[in-house]
Formats: sequence, structure tokens, C-alpha cells
Amino acid sequence: MISHPAFPSEPWCLRATHLDLAVLAEYESLFALSNGHIGWRGNLEEGEPHGLPGSYLNGVYELRPLPYAEAGYGYPQSGQTLINVTNGKLIRLLVDDEPFDLRYGELHSHELLLDLRDGVLRRHAEWASPADDVVRVSTTRLVSFTQRSVAAICYEVESLAGPVRLVVQSELVANEPLPSPDGDPRVAAALEAPLVPLEHAAKEARAGLVHRTRRSSLCVAVGMNHVVEGPDGVHVSAESLPNLGRVTITASLQPGQRLRVIKFVGYGWSGSRSQPAVRDQAAAALTGAVQTGWDGLLAEQRAYLDTFWEHADVQVEGDSEIQQAVRFALFHVLQAGARAEGRAIPAKGLTGPGYDGHSFWDTESYVLPLLTQVVPAAAAHALRWRHSTLPLAMERASQLNLRGAAFPWRTIAGEECSGYWPAGTAAFHVNADIADAVIRYVDSTGDEAFERGVGLDLLTQTARLWRSLGHHDAQGRFHIDGVTGPDEYSAIADDNVYTNLMAQQNLHAAAEAARRHPERARELGIDAEEMAGWRDAAETMHIPYDAALGVHPQAAGFTGHEVWDFDATTDEQYPLLLHFPYFDLYRKQVVKQADLVLAMFRRGDAFTAEEKVRNFAYYERLTVRDSSLSASAQAVLAAEVGHLRLAYDYVAEAALMDLDDLEHNTGDGLHIASLAGSWIALVNGLAGMRRRDGRLAFAPRLPDGLTRLGFTIVMRGSRLGVRVDEGTATYTLIDGEPFAVTHHGKPVTLARGKPITCPIPAAPPESPAPRQPRGREPSRRRLRPAQDGPSPAVGPGSAGA
Amino acid sequence: MISHPAFPSEPWCLRATHLDLAVLAEYESLFALSNGHIGWRGNLEEGEPHGLPGSYLNGVYELRPLPYAEAGYGYPQSGQTLINVTNGKLIRLLVDDEPFDLRYGELHSHELLLDLRDGVLRRHAEWASPADDVVRVSTTRLVSFTQRSVAAICYEVESLAGPVRLVVQSELVANEPLPSPDGDPRVAAALEAPLVPLEHAAKEARAGLVHRTRRSSLCVAVGMNHVVEGPDGVHVSAESLPNLGRVTITASLQPGQRLRVIKFVGYGWSGSRSQPAVRDQAAAALTGAVQTGWDGLLAEQRAYLDTFWEHADVQVEGDSEIQQAVRFALFHVLQAGARAEGRAIPAKGLTGPGYDGHSFWDTESYVLPLLTQVVPAAAAHALRWRHSTLPLAMERASQLNLRGAAFPWRTIAGEECSGYWPAGTAAFHVNADIADAVIRYVDSTGDEAFERGVGLDLLTQTARLWRSLGHHDAQGRFHIDGVTGPDEYSAIADDNVYTNLMAQQNLHAAAEAARRHPERARELGIDAEEMAGWRDAAETMHIPYDAALGVHPQAAGFTGHEVWDFDATTDEQYPLLLHFPYFDLYRKQVVKQADLVLAMFRRGDAFTAEEKVRNFAYYERLTVRDSSLSASAQAVLAAEVGHLRLAYDYVAEAALMDLDDLEHNTGDGLHIASLAGSWIALVNGLAGMRRRDGRLAFAPRLPDGLTRLGFTIVMRGSRLGVRVDEGTATYTLIDGEPFAVTHHGKPVTLARGKPITCPIPAAPPESPAPRQPRGREPSRRRLRPAQDGPSPAVGPGSAGA
Repeated sequence: MISHPAFPSEPWCLRATHLDLAVLAEYESLFALSNGHIGWRGNLEEGEPHGLPGSYLNGVYELRPLPYAEAGYGYPQSGQTLINVTNGKLIRLLVDDEPFDLRYGELHSHELLLDLRDGVLRRHAEWASPADDVVRVSTTRLVSFTQRSVAAICYEVESLAGPVRLVVQSELVANEPLPSPDGDPRVAAALEAPLVPLEHAAKEARAGLVHRTRRSSLCVAVGMNHVVEGPDGVHVSAESLPNLGRVTITASLQPGQRLRVIKFVGYGWSGSRSQPAVRDQAAAALTGAVQTGWDGLLAEQRAYLDTFWEHADVQVEGDSEIQQAVRFALFHVLQAGARAEGRAIPAKGLTGPGYDGHSFWDTESYVLPLLTQVVPAAAAHALRWRHSTLPLAMERASQLNLRGAAFPWRTIAGEECSGYWPAGTAAFHVNADIADAVIRYVDSTGDEAFERGVGLDLLTQTARLWRSLGHHDAQGRFHIDGVTGPDEYSAIADDNVYTNLMAQQNLHAAAEAARRHPERARELGIDAEEMAGWRDAAETMHIPYDAALGVHPQAAGFTGHEVWDFDATTDEQYPLLLHFPYFDLYRKQVVKQADLVLAMFRRGDAFTAEEKVRNFAYYERLTVRDSSLSASAQAVLAAEVGHLRLAYDYVAEAALMDLDDLEHNTGDGLHIASLAGSWIALVNGLAGMRRRDGRLAFAPRLPDGLTRLGFTIVMRGSRLGVRVDEGTATYTLIDGEPFAVTHHGKPVTLARGKPITCPIPAAPPESPAPRQPRGREPSRRRLRPAQDGPSPAVGPGSAGA
Repeated sequence: MISHPAFPSEPWCLRATHLDLAVLAEYESLFALSNGHIGWRGNLEEGEPHGLPGSYLNGVYELRPLPYAEAGYGYPQSGQTLINVTNGKLIRLLVDDEPFDLRYGELHSHELLLDLRDGVLRRHAEWASPADDVVRVSTTRLVSFTQRSVAAICYEVESLAGPVRLVVQSELVANEPLPSPDGDPRVAAALEAPLVPLEHAAKEARAGLVHRTRRSSLCVAVGMNHVVEGPDGVHVSAESLPNLGRVTITASLQPGQRLRVIKFVGYGWSGSRSQPAVRDQAAAALTGAVQTGWDGLLAEQRAYLDTFWEHADVQVEGDSEIQQAVRFALFHVLQAGARAEGRAIPAKGLTGPGYDGHSFWDTESYVLPLLTQVVPAAAAHALRWRHSTLPLAMERASQLNLRGAAFPWRTIAGEECSGYWPAGTAAFHVNADIADAVIRYVDSTGDEAFERGVGLDLLTQTARLWRSLGHHDAQGRFHIDGVTGPDEYSAIADDNVYTNLMAQQNLHAAAEAARRHPERARELGIDAEEMAGWRDAAETMHIPYDAALGVHPQAAGFTGHEVWDFDATTDEQYPLLLHFPYFDLYRKQVVKQADLVLAMFRRGDAFTAEEKVRNFAYYERLTVRDSSLSASAQAVLAAEVGHLRLAYDYVAEAALMDLDDLEHNTGDGLHIASLAGSWIALVNGLAGMRRRDGRLAFAPRLPDGLTRLGFTIVMRGSRLGVRVDEGTATYTLIDGEPFAVTHHGKPVTLARGKPITCPIPAAPPESPAPRQPRGREPSRRRLRPAQDGPSPAVGPGSAGA
């Protein structure tokens, strides 16, 4: 865990002026650069010391056998694991034969700076070698948003004292040895030397390597080229080996002289195209980058981000730490999803190997709500990726004795990779979550072509799944038995409320979409009987209710279970899954993450206000938040039922998940869904935004401590600015057609150039705040912290303080 | 599957006059010899051809890692697998240099004969070699019941035509190569060369090998010695290698002359004693056997079995096939349990490597009911073995966040070896089954010392488990949530009726036993509060009931689940677990094996007669009997509710499970619990025997087709003979004190020498027979089959005929 204060609160950057080598892996995740296609962890250019070296290409995975102590029908036999591809970040430096290494000599200063507006990672180091040579090393690194196969580094060395002789080795290294993971099941399995060398070449300032993954047979090509500026006498040479490309630059610098090396890196990969084609693709990307030049890449990057921030920025006033954290979150969500184009958005983006690089329902349920409202094209891409895996999902459904499509719980390329079905295959809600994302996207964009094609396909096959998964009882109620909802501390239960409500929406939406697109529906074999069957299942969907307690059980029988003995559980026993068997967790009332609470957010229409209040209080005292997916949903409901201070605490937890390393595994990669969840917590939570049938409703209220919240929403091609202040909210139509929203239930019609400010009605008196399990209270957000300088300590460790 | 008729119906033996090499493994299981300590599969002496070579020592296992695609807390990391120890059965024969091999030359005749009264396996072969030498080979093999470390073979060769030169190689072979198992999860994992050689020696007619298992570090010693009789010129020599001991006998026989080799084999093993000690133990056993001599061993064997049959024999008249099958079953149950002494009784005895050689609840719930009533000392031994694993079970409970003891679902040495917790660890009923066996043993024997020691320990720690596993609801009802009952097509359900009723009995019995033994109870830390807690949990135990359907759900919610689509399930899709995912089985109404029906047998007092009728009919239509444990329980309840013909069908299915290879896996070893279940089906089923509080009740009725059923019961030291004829039942006190039983509810007091014959009341009119799932009806037992000669075809294939 990174001990706070690690980062000064600055509105547009993340800066580390001190590097704690013990938690280097966390820094590498936080400072990772990615465009959704290429991912480079924030490893130091010189390669060592490192926490976990990582260079990733979205979709480049290796297969590994999934072993079972006892086999079973339908268990996936093969898993997919994101691999560390050829490292193009490496630039080693020798100063008078002494390797530049932070662990030796003396480090006068060191700074890492992730600039969220420029989209680059800057580094400044002033170092005295063991031989007392003093140099300043400055690097700027980018992974291009505009040229998706390109990354580049500007590497500068200046002599600060006497004359120095420099050797710079700029490298491509394949099959880097990796530290072996610990026993935590969430850490990716190690895969040794997954890349088989195919060809290598080097000439002048260029080198290239081509490899093939051993079992998955994906071809990966990398090339690099350099532009070198320095005093006379600079010499450049290139060489290559099967797993190494190296360009060596030698120079002698007088004090004040500087060597500047621009390293351009181009990647290409394919599972179907030929080795020469992939090699040439990388070379072409590289040529394009060199053509654009370093300054050109920088300028493109800035322009791309200017547009992004124009659409996506969230302003938070009164809490500079949250302001920084939410922009950091938005930037990393963009990095994960911006250019995934045809590939999945993994749970950790391309920032680390955690969860084997798999994508889960996180994408549709946490990342796409944000992307849909700020970068809708990226959301469409993500759904098109899901759609591209539809044949695999239909095959899986058939293997499982079901109709339609059963999308995988975790995957890279579309095949189910879950090796534990009670918390994998049984979590069928992923299918309704995909449908939910389709509904949200279509409703938010009005993209009819998408609905007719990708949308109807996805809605139809998921509706067919639900229809075959559920059944009617003698009273005509439709049940979905033996499934696992979002809460992973329960499994294989009947009538999970979240699942049933989401399936209900899925079935209704499929029938509606089929009605709107009769021709496509006919092509899909949908007839009136089938649509009637969907509607009937939706209308008779059983939602269990515990009348005695006056709450909804998360699933049938849940509220009758023994309540977990929280008082006997020590702080060290969290996360519970590492200290208690599943069987014990499953049969007791203990909730890992929002489940019924998430249902009240996603299907708020299915609950009365009173039910929300009672349910929220009931589940708060059971929810331990051992999942990073929980805080954001709890923030939304806390705000809705009037517990603003608690909502604020959960906003902070979602936003600071990685900056504070709250789950102690940020080193494996960032929690992209939690980062996206911080937007959800602010926009759906504090601003109370809800979308339904193409309309937006807001019910903003700021907690004590925040003075302003501002954000932008793209809806049906219009762009809407929302600014919440103490006592008022202002709605501005930035561009697009006039537009109606509601503010605390009252309609407000917006036209361009006419911002409307509405008073925020006084909050009803707050009922007593619900309690959380002992020791699992969220950190209390300190009111009105200092605007600058280090923030107060927050994190689980300080909860009792 | 062995195609019927394979075996002529003979009352006291199993004879194969034809050897189908395609199903050799099945023969090897059926003709296996064992005394519970040593197990020798019925492999041919010459080693080849073979189905699956197998020599086992009870408790000699190897450790193997249990792999998981996704790890979880509390998952066992290491499994135990029964290994094929040094093969002492091998006797190779060369006739004028031609190896005696059934696949070559011409086999004039071949017979295998398992003699159930002598306890030996006899073999006769007349064979013409490819060179036209004709020999008769006769062997008799035994695994001694009286000298538990000893096995022996009498091997005779006679020349039938011209003079022949013979070489006989009698061997000990370690690390035999084994055929690799197929993908069926029930087939034992292959373990290559598990034995590390430690020492070997050979001299005169003797040889010996000592090995150590690679990971589990068990020392295994085997020695052999020979007595050779033949014409002049017989020469004997011995040699040894690390994995081979060989005694070679050469002889020249004139027509009519005979060579006779008696091979004595002694085994020893230990996990704690030294290598010399184990070596010497095997040598001592061998010396004792040679001293006793072949005829002595034969005589001891016969005497041992005479006593056994006097106590255990079951006479069935009217169905010679069932008569043979039930004696075959009794013999194999004896072989599995007779001399296990301090070791487990595995699910397959020592007849094959199936289920990794593990013991399950089968022992306590199927094997011990028989042993307790006919060989109570063996039942006590089995329970003492469980008791010896109590420290491991208490450690496991603690690991699982529970109190008391959690016995393993499957094990050899006491550690949990289940690699799939929903059908392993979650099946907590094994603990109540152990308690049930304790209660049964104590009640049947009146063995107070046992109760005070082993009994109270086991009852206490299992009661503590239940008390910590369950909880009270707000209405004061005690629930046991999230467990798996006997039916393996359901899992992780709340309030499984079988589990709750058995736990209820366990809790009551623990409190009663503690009350009877206050001093020991104090030593165990049991106070009045704890006993009150047990009684309270038992008295408030919740038993779910579906009032709308008028049946007990197997577990809470079960009767609300979708009914499995049996009509869409083809014959080839059974067993279902090999063709459908667990998640699909678990969430539907489909029953692998008696669960609620077993509860109605074990806890018949908890159901009314009407409930039994309705429940039985309800579950019959859901039960597919993919488990060999099912038919016997169904037989018992079918008889109780008056469906005698159906009961008879289930008697036959239990008894013929292996002789007809009904589950297609007899080659991996016999289904000992099903064999024992055939006794249960006859005695508790057709004779309606129930035991409670030291008293026996009978309600015998014969189905059409059977003319007599006779058996013997040992109860509190008395021996009771029961003979059921058409219309009457006769009760005879063979020895012991006067004794009261009930016959169809009426008390009958028995005194020695005064058999009492009671009329059997007319059966009430039979209600319509319940239906089974399509294609899963038991084979209909043909009425009054021919008394001799081949029986009619029975088996699933003929069900539709």
C-alpha cells in the first residue's frame, strides 16, 4: 500500500517526487500509459529496478491449460492470459561505464509526472554516478491516442558537472523474465517465455523483432527507429538477436551539453494475417510516426485530449484531492477504452496483468455508462467487440443446454475462461448487463443502425438465454434458479433480484427492439410467439420480498440466513475470501459488493422510495466492500436515500481505490471499473442523474465539504453542461437541439445560449445514517480539507481513527 | 459392459467359462480377492493380457497435488491416491520357450471360479501352445482372512500330450506400467512409478523387495517363498533387481506328469516404522505362512468363512440369480471390511483404483449397517478408524470456521481429498452418517465401553459441528444452510431434509450419551449448557414442507424448481453428470440418488405413512439413479409403501450392479456400497426390518417370484434367524438371551429352541406403481425365472423391452 501523502493534490496531473522502491509496482500501474491498444506500464526506462515490467497489446494472450482437481462437464479446458509482449520502453544509459540505476550512486532528485492534459508521462532525474559524474535525465513518454500502433519516448541527458562519456542502449526485449506471482488467486498466472522468435533485423538507427505466441499462435511485430540530436561525435549503431533489438548511441558531453534521443516504437499483431504482413504493419506505423515527428505526436496527443476533456471533464470544488482523483480516473478510463476498437476493455485496462488481463461485466456495467455519456463512439466499439464474440457465446449456451447466447464471465478473446463455475458461468447476469449497455447506448445516442444490427442481435440472443434459463411455476410466476448475482459472497441462488430485474428489462427490450425492426427480427427467426414469450416472462418475473423484515432478499431465502459474525472478524481477515471458505460465505448474510443495492440503481423504477430506504439500510450493515465495484453503487443509493455524507465517503473510496491502493493490489493494474465508478458516484450519485427513454433526470445535492460539481453529458448528439453549486444547479445546452431534463422532478427545457439555474430544494431531514459492518465503515471524508498540499490520510487503516 | 448371461447361476460360486478379453478389467474386479488389508485383482497369473493390473495394501497411497484453475481458501492442496503396490501374483510360464498367453496358441478351455465358501479363486486352463504342446494349468489363489499379511497361490502344470520343458518365473514386480485412465472423473488418476526402491534380495526359492512411496513416504516390503513339487530334475533359482524379485523353476514333464509350485507372499508396510522393521514384518508373515503350509491356509480360510456364512448368509429362493448375487455381494463386503483393522473401508474395497481408492460416507451408511448386524467386530474396527482421524477432522473444522469435527468427504488417511467443494466439503451429512453408525453399533451391540470412548468422542464432535453450522431464525427454528445432501445433482441448498433429520438425531444422541457418561463428558468439556444447546437445536430443527404439493422438498425451495426435461434426454445422456453442467443439474428437479427417500428410511419416525407414500411417488419420478447408492434405499421405501414388485426390481439392481456392470465402470472396482445395499434392500426392504432402542421390528412380505427369504441377525449378542415364506415368517433365536421382536407391529418373544411362525397379514391393495423418469425405469424382474441355467437379460438396455 502506498503510504499517504504520496501525491500532492494538483488538478491536472499526478506527480511523484519520491519513489518508494518497495511499492514500485503500484507506481508503475498508476503511471501506466495506454491508448486501449498498446499498454506500457510506468516502468523506468532503464528497466531496473522494477516492480513488474509490462508491455501489452490488447488481445495478445497466451493459452494455458485450466486444471481441475475434479473434472466436470462444460468446464473450460483452456484459459487465456494477457502476456507481457516485447518491451519497447527500454533505454539503458551508461555514464562513463556506470549504469544509470537509482539504487546506486546518489539521486539528487527524481520526479514522475503524469500530465492529464498533454497525455504524456514526464520524468526528471538528477543523478550522481558512483564515480561522481552528475547528469540530468529527462524523459517524456507517450502512447499515441491518434496513431494507435505507436508509442514514443523523448530521452534527454545533460551533463551537469564534468565531461562524461555516454552510452545509450535503446532496446526491444522479448520474453523478459517476470517476478513470479504470489499465491493470491487474483494475480495472473506466470507464463514463461511465451514468445517464439520468428525474425529479427537491425540497421542504422532501426531494429525490429517478430515473434509468435507459443500456443495461441498470434504474430507480434515490433519496430523502433530513432532520431538523435547531440554534439559532434555522436555514433549510432544497431544490432539484433532473436529476443533483442538494440540501437546503441555513444556520445561525449561537456558540462551543459545535451544528448536527445527520440525513440519511436511501432507495434503490430494478428492472429490471422501472415508474418510479413504483421511485420510490415509495424514498420508502416513506425514510418508514419517518424514522419509525424516527436513534436507532431505531442501536438496530436494534446489536441485529442483537449477534445476529450471538453466532453468528459468533471469539476469538483472544495476537495482538491477528489478533483485530482476523478480526472486521473477519467484519464485512465479513456486510456483503457479509447482505441480498443474490436477488442475488449479489460478490468485492469492495459495497466497490469491482474485477473489475467480478462474482461468481465465491469466493462458494460461500470465503464460503458461513462463512455456512453462522454465518448459514445468508444462505447459502440466495446459493444461491437461483444457482438463479435456472439458466435462463441451461442456455442457456449448450446454446450450449457441453453438457447441464445451465454457470454463468458471472464475472457480476452470471447471464450469462457472461468475455472470456477459457481462464481463464473453461474453469474449469468453478465448477459443482462450487456443488454443493459445496449439499451443505454441506443437510448443515449438514438443510433438506429446500431440497434437494428448489433443491438438486436445482442438483445435477441440474451433474451433467448433468459427464456430458456428460467421457468414458470404453478402460479405462473417466472423464476430464474441457481444463478449467481453480482455479490460474489453468495452463489447459486434462486431468484436473485438483480438478475431477475435485469433479465426482465432485457426481455422487454428485446421484444420492443424486434417490434421496431420487424425485417431484421424475421431474419433472426423471431416470430410473434417468441416475442410474446419474452414479454410474458418479463411480466411474470418473480421478485422475492421478505414481508416480515420489509426488505427485498438479495435472492430467495437470503434474509433467512445467518448473519456473518462481523464482530468476531478481525481487520486482517479482510478480504474475507482469502480467509474463509466459499461455503461459509455463501450460506451467510455477508455481501462482498452491491447486489440488491445495484439493482436499486439500475432498476430504480422497480422499487418504491420507502423500499430503497429500508433495503439500503439493511444491506449497508452486511456489505464489506471486498470488491472495488461496490462503493460507486453504494454512493448512488446513499445519495438517493439522502445520506449525502456517506455518499461522499463512497465517492472518495471509488475515486481513491488506486491512488490509495485500498485493495493492496494496484500493483497488478488499476481498477478501471472503480475509476469509472467514481464518475458514476458523482454523476448518478451526487447529481442524481437517471436516464430513461431518451430523457435525463437530475436530483443534485452536494454534501457538506463540496462547493461545486460540474460535468458534461452527451445525449442524443446534444451536449449538456451541468453545474451544481451550493443551493443551485445550472443546466447549459452547449450544443445540439433543445432538450428537456428534469431537476428534482420538475421539467426544465434547455436551449442553446440559455443556461438555466434552478434552486435545489431543501433536503428532507436525514434519517440516522445506516451502519456498516464493524471495521468496514468507509473512511470519513474530512470536511473542507486544505485546498493544496498533502491531503489527510485516508484509507482503511484510518477508519477507526 | 458384460453382456449377459456371463455367469451361470450357482448358489455358492461365480464361474466364468469364457473370458471376453474386451472386458477383462470387469472380470478382474469381480474375481478380486481381498481380506481388507491386501487386495489382489483377479489378474491372470501370467500378467498378460490384462485389463488393469492391481495389487493393493489398504492405506498405501501416494500424494498428488490437487490443481485448481482458480484457487480458494480451504481447498485441499494435496490428494491421496491408492497405488498399485508390488505385484506378488505374477507367475509366468514358458512351455518349450513359448510363453503361456491366452492370446496365442489355442485355448481348449478356460475357467475362473470364485468359491464363496472356500474363499479361493480357482482357475483351470487347457492350452495348446503355438508349437502344439498341450498343458493343463490349474491355479488356486487365496488372500488369507486369518493371516492378514499373507496371500498364496498354488500353481500346477500338467503335460497332456508330449514331453515338455517348462520354465516357471514366479515374480514380484514393482512399478508395473498401468494403462492410462480415460477422461472420466471417476477413474483414478494415474501415478507413474510411485515406488522408490530401497532394497532387494533373493536366495534359494525366496526373494524380497522393499520400496518407499515417493511423496507420502510409506515403506512397503514384500517377500515371497516357494514350495516346489515335481519330477526329478526340477531346478530352482532366485534373483533380484530393484523393481524385480524372481524365482525361476525349470522342469521337464512327461505326459501326465505335473509340476506344482506353492507361492507364499507376505506384505508389510508402515508410515512410521523403520525400513528394517517393515522388511522383517513381511518376512515374518511369510515364515508364518510357510509354516502353516498351503493346506493349512486353505483349511483356515474355509473355517473362517464357515463362521462368516453362519452369521451372514442370506437365502433367497425362487430367483437363483439373486441368490448368487447376494452371496457374491456378502462375500465382497466381507473381503472389503473383514480385516481393515485401523484402516478405512474404501468405496471399491481393494478391488480396483476407482475413486482414487477413497472412502466416503458409503462406509458408515451402506457397509456398516450390514457389518454391524453380522460381523459387529468389523463395524467397530471401521468406526475406530474414523475415530483415529478425529484430530484431522477437528483441524479441518477449525480451518472451515466451525467447531467440533468436519470429517472428509473422501479420504484414505483422514485428510480431505475432495477437489470440488460443492459436492465435497459441503456434503456435511457425512458427519451425521458417522454418528448414525455409532448409534447403530452401540444400539445393536450394547457395547458400553465403546460408547464411553470412541462413541462419545464422535458424537460430541459431530454435535458441536452441527451446532456451529446451523443457526436459529427469528421464529426460533434451527436451520442448516448451504449444504449438500446425498443427492449429488443438487448442492449448496438450505435445510436439506436428510441432513437436518440426521443432524437432529446426532444432536439428540450426543446429549443422551453425554448424560449417560458424565465423567467422560466432563473430560470432553461438555457442560449442561452445551447439552441443552444440542437438545434445543435438535428440537427446533426446521424441516421444510411443501403444503401445496403435500410433499417434503428435498431441501428448501427444491419443489419450486423446474423439473428436468426427461423426455428430451436420451439414453446416451446418462449418467447426466457426464453430459450436462452441474449448474443445470443443481437448479432443476432431478435427483441422482435417494436423498429424501433415504431420509424416510434412516429417520422413518419423522414421517407419517401418508407422507411416505406421497413423497416416495414424488421422488420416484425425479430419480435417475446415476449413483449406485440409490437402488437399495428405493427398495426399502418401495417395500414399505407397498410396491413389492418395484422393491424387488431395486433389490436386483443393487445386487447385480457389478455382475451386470450396470454403471459401466465395474472395471475400476466393485461398488461395495451397492453390494452391501442388496442386503439392506432384502433385510430392511422385503423383510421390513427396523431397529430402534435395542429392539427389532419386522414387516416381511415377499414379492411375487420369491418363495423364501432367510437371513441371520446379530443383536445385543443374540443371534436371530428369520425366514420369510409365502404367507408366513418364522423367527428363531439361534443363541443368546430371550428376545422380543415385532412382526407387522405385533410383539413376538423368542426363546432358544422355540421358533415362532407368524402369518403375514394380507397386503393392502397396492396403489398404482409410481413412475420413474422415461428410460430410467429399473429392469423388471422376470417372475419365476428358470432355477438354473442362464438368467434372462436384465440391465438398462432391456428396460424398454
